[in-house]
Amino acid sequence: MGTTDLRARFKLWLSSDSAEGVFGDGKWRLLAAIAEEGSLRAAAESLGISYRKAWGDIKKAEANLDTALVEKHHGGRTGGSTKLTPVGQAWLDAYSAFRSEIEDAATSAYSRHIAPVVETR
Amino acid sequence: MGTTDLRARFKLWLSSDSAEGVFGDGKWRLLAAIAEEGSLRAAAESLGISYRKAWGDIKKAEANLDTALVEKHHGGRTGGSTKLTPVGQAWLDAYSAFRSEIEDAATSAYSRHIAPVVETR
Repeated sequence: MGTTDLRARFKLWLSSDSAEGVFGDGKWRLLAAIAEEGSLRAAAESLGISYRKAWGDIKKAEANLDTALVEKHHGGRTGGSTKLTPVGQAWLDAYSAFRSEIEDAATSAYSRHIAPVVETR
Repeated sequence: MGTTDLRARFKLWLSSDSAEGVFGDGKWRLLAAIAEEGSLRAAAESLGISYRKAWGDIKKAEANLDTALVEKHHGGRTGGSTKLTPVGQAWLDAYSAFRSEIEDAATSAYSRHIAPVVETR
């Protein structure tokens, strides 16, 4: 039937009156990768995007949210590091909790509303 | 600041191991419009899509779900009508309830997780 392994998928983002994509799953993954890797270059690599795109996305997010999300530390031979600012960490934590709740709701709503329709077939 | 009017937005769909877009917001809107308008042509028009695309989307959804979602009634001078089958109506109702719960969860999760980060700025 091809529907026995169905599952809910979603894409999540925040919009404002003036901008459609203020912050969303993509920029959240980038912040998480920076926190994990400690460097923008390693974060970009882990996500399979270019350094240039990663840096552009951070700049866009910072402009949209009107706040600094990362701080660069230029360090000699190692090429420096990138860390989240306290505000960047607060956004990462908040969006992670926000997204996780919606993921749980989607799984639960799927079981109660979609699964019964699939199963009657 | 540009972030005072932020809100949660999402796109929702169902995927399986073999297909990424089995059914989702677009096809749900199309079923809802058919139920509302009683005709595929009027439904397509109300959504600003071509009759050809609407019909293609219905055929794809029916193939993906392996069930008939609509039935056409060919009628003389009026050009006929398109109605949802009982299974089509069950999918419309189920997906509407499913989507509505996730919308509520997104609003609630936004208030508890994102709004506080926006407000501290």
